[in-house]
Amino acid sequence: MDTGGQRGRFITLEGIEGAGKSTQVAPLVEALARSGIDAIATREPGGTPEAEAIRALLLDPAYRSLGKDAELLLVFAARAEHIEKVIRPALQRGRWVVCDRFTDATFAYQGAGRRIGSARIAVLEDWVQGELRPDLTLLLDLPVSTGQARIRGRSADRFEREGSAFFERVRATYLERAREAPERYRIIDASESPSATSAAIRRAVEHLMA
Amino acid sequence: MDTGGQRGRFITLEGIEGAGKSTQVAPLVEALARSGIDAIATREPGGTPEAEAIRALLLDPAYRSLGKDAELLLVFAARAEHIEKVIRPALQRGRWVVCDRFTDATFAYQGAGRRIGSARIAVLEDWVQGELRPDLTLLLDLPVSTGQARIRGRSADRFEREGSAFFERVRATYLERAREAPERYRIIDASESPSATSAAIRRAVEHLMA
Repeated sequence: MDTGGQRGRFITLEGIEGAGKSTQVAPLVEALARSGIDAIATREPGGTPEAEAIRALLLDPAYRSLGKDAELLLVFAARAEHIEKVIRPALQRGRWVVCDRFTDATFAYQGAGRRIGSARIAVLEDWVQGELRPDLTLLLDLPVSTGQARIRGRSADRFEREGSAFFERVRATYLERAREAPERYRIIDASESPSATSAAIRRAVEHLMA
Repeated sequence: MDTGGQRGRFITLEGIEGAGKSTQVAPLVEALARSGIDAIATREPGGTPEAEAIRALLLDPAYRSLGKDAELLLVFAARAEHIEKVIRPALQRGRWVVCDRFTDATFAYQGAGRRIGSARIAVLEDWVQGELRPDLTLLLDLPVSTGQARIRGRSADRFEREGSAFFERVRATYLERAREAPERYRIIDASESPSATSAAIRRAVEHLMA
């Protein structure tokens, strides 16, 4: 049901493995709720049963020989489903959406990581998203070595098995995209404690809540 | 290993459910072998373990609410994998490829069936395939009612559960595409016996074997 009110805001969290994105989604949603803002938390790839099935396929080490074009199309297939079923309906009802990863991750992981040209990715971005872009992207930034140390001991999925050169390219691309569109990005120092990072995130979203 | 010889030919079989495509692939490959042509049989969506996993997701009735854009991207994800791992390598070695369904099926099923605009599909066709198109497409044509009668009793997948109006649109689109590019298509009457259809297919490929 459309409330007739304002469209909700779309906030994405990005960063390399170990940056703490998944940890930070809930505190942000709670902070928004304390300000009277109804927000949902979701993640990519995933967010619907169909998209989660695609996510499982993408992360399964059994499919490690999956080609890079196929991988990219799977990422966007899950995104199309997520946008249609979750993101657009929420925004249209005036709810805010806080999403753990979105298309910046595609430019970083499939683009810089797997070396697919960004123009080629942009074709699919337009095809799937139309005009939809995040209102604010919080880039949780930290050195690759710090991130890697944090995730040590987790069972590694297909991406987490990549080496540090892969993640250095991913981090560099995130930072480059943030520099190119400063109006949309806030770079958050994610090398500190989770609570310090939460506080920095709250300060970064304040301007949207005015 | 590249033989330095001629690129192989790429033949696709298309048609609605019950047309007998899957039945006709093996006799065609055998007929080619008798003429000294080394051909492989494959199918879409599928043809590699990764693409078969995507196929399973596409056909699973549990995911019947899958959106049409996501469905289309999954089809092309499986196709990208199939082209990279199976079709291009075979053609480059001079082998012929006989494929049960290819992109014509996408224009027919996702385009006409699910009502996605053909220009929108063509963007993905170019993105995934580059210049690759079939050398010959055999359209196994028959009335929808005849096809439906043949598949009665099979357990229906997510596509086979569609009604006859859906399949009428699919058939009409196949025929329209064949009329628009007669140099690439041969329309085969598939309402006759399997052996009559096999004979018609052999006659239709003779011009490629000269």
